[in-house]
Amino acid sequence: MKHFVVGVDVGGTNVKLGVVDGRAQVLARSAFSTKEYIQSPSRLIMAISRAVIELCKVADIPRKDVQGVGIGLPGLVDVQAGVIRVLPNIPGWKDVPLKKVLEGKLGLPVQVENDVNMITLGEWQYGAGKGIQNLICMTLGTGVGAGLILNNDIYRGPGFAAGEIGHAPLNEDGPACGCGGYGCYERYVGNKTLQKWAAEVFDQKDVTLEEVSRRAMQGKKKALRFWQEVGEKVGVGLVGPVNILNPECIIIGGGVSRSFEFIAPAVRKVIARRAMRTQADMVKVIRARLDDDAGLIGAKVLIHHEKN
Amino acid sequence: MKHFVVGVDVGGTNVKLGVVDGRAQVLARSAFSTKEYIQSPSRLIMAISRAVIELCKVADIPRKDVQGVGIGLPGLVDVQAGVIRVLPNIPGWKDVPLKKVLEGKLGLPVQVENDVNMITLGEWQYGAGKGIQNLICMTLGTGVGAGLILNNDIYRGPGFAAGEIGHAPLNEDGPACGCGGYGCYERYVGNKTLQKWAAEVFDQKDVTLEEVSRRAMQGKKKALRFWQEVGEKVGVGLVGPVNILNPECIIIGGGVSRSFEFIAPAVRKVIARRAMRTQADMVKVIRARLDDDAGLIGAKVLIHHEKN
Repeated sequence: MKHFVVGVDVGGTNVKLGVVDGRAQVLARSAFSTKEYIQSPSRLIMAISRAVIELCKVADIPRKDVQGVGIGLPGLVDVQAGVIRVLPNIPGWKDVPLKKVLEGKLGLPVQVENDVNMITLGEWQYGAGKGIQNLICMTLGTGVGAGLILNNDIYRGPGFAAGEIGHAPLNEDGPACGCGGYGCYERYVGNKTLQKWAAEVFDQKDVTLEEVSRRAMQGKKKALRFWQEVGEKVGVGLVGPVNILNPECIIIGGGVSRSFEFIAPAVRKVIARRAMRTQADMVKVIRARLDDDAGLIGAKVLIHHEKN
Repeated sequence: MKHFVVGVDVGGTNVKLGVVDGRAQVLARSAFSTKEYIQSPSRLIMAISRAVIELCKVADIPRKDVQGVGIGLPGLVDVQAGVIRVLPNIPGWKDVPLKKVLEGKLGLPVQVENDVNMITLGEWQYGAGKGIQNLICMTLGTGVGAGLILNNDIYRGPGFAAGEIGHAPLNEDGPACGCGGYGCYERYVGNKTLQKWAAEVFDQKDVTLEEVSRRAMQGKKKALRFWQEVGEKVGVGLVGPVNILNPECIIIGGGVSRSFEFIAPAVRKVIARRAMRTQADMVKVIRARLDDDAGLIGAKVLIHHEKN
């Protein structure tokens, strides 16, 4: 019986793999450094292919029991054509027909997806968004992005580019963003900005956000105040998406979600104050539940979801 | 054969009715002043009921040939339950089961809908959005709102409140809005603001936007410049929705769309400059095509769409 899916989560730093069973449990994992294979798409594809075969061996799962391989990548992914259009942080990837190439190498069905959408699929079906038909699944890290579940289906947009809440402007005259826009949400709550902000607040150049979280956990007021102010900014940027999409919930994942408990009250308060009545009353702000496994489990959803 | 639909477009000023045939042509129309029946929902409902019957008589269409009545109202409409939750500009409407009441009076199937969504349904199936699966249909007038077609279906949101692009903030420290938010898009491009702005620019207190359009048509530079600046503001507010939803097109309707040719170049330029590459390259900014008939024709789409 084809019970298993192999999930592959390609990041700028690591490629993580996992075998996911019928109950969405990750049975076996592996990982390798992206950098060693970054010279060309074909080298990275070869490494992924080898790692999939290796992981199945280690997990003692025969190929005939593998339903498919789901791969999430950080960039613009044409899910229908199976083609990676561009990966901003991994050079050389331009219109790579990854689905076809990997299916040839592996002899297994392959689906490709944007990494944030793959996380969204996982959280929607097996995590914080279980049973919810309309949600925004947000990742708060170096990048600020989101996957959208609307009318009980993933909404990717006709160019597979939907969900870029990090590039909705908060201030039309705000700082320039790498995307070409001005005052993008990501410029206010992306990790780089938060780190600079923390360095100023604590007058300590190398303070990490993890350290600020530890201090908040110890009840240190300055750290608690810092996260509260971060939460306020996060909340301000959610008012637009909440008013436009009227979601039932916003799932917050990504690195900053480790400090979820410190930011959530402020996020909720700002939405309650600034968003429209119906939308504000309805939306719940919750923490992602699957953490680092969300993408791997999302691969299972992807394979079941796309039947081509 | 049940070939005809009666469309009813309830506004704060007028209620407009039309008989729409199988080819989405409006065969007969009528209208009455909302104000005369505004004292209570039941009076307005009675007036609508009478007007529907009267219009069918005038158009010589027997009731057995009417497939249903579609009604659009300016407010929060629970399409599934057939209940009007609230109409901000028509007092007394709170949780009114309009569908049930009117079906009882008319002996015909009735569907209720938000007015902007009804316009959107019309433009999508028979107007500027024909054949397009993902679009934003925007009304630019006193209010600034939108209907969303996503994955080839109308997206209303779980609370029937989606599409409020007029209340996505452009500036977090901007002026307070009636909705409770700050710096809402509507505060910058709603008619009230544009009228004040025009009065300043032309140093003429009672100048109307229609007059400014006439001057632009005559090639007057100041008027052309005014509309160009309006277009820039309209464009800035669309960057967020475009990045988040990656629509194939934005349809602009409402009063201000009469000046579409003067604002469109600036709208397009700002989106091209400020939105993300994929989204900007893809999105077309076009003018609504059905004008005042959009809602009536939308009623036909609504009746065919909702089969309950």
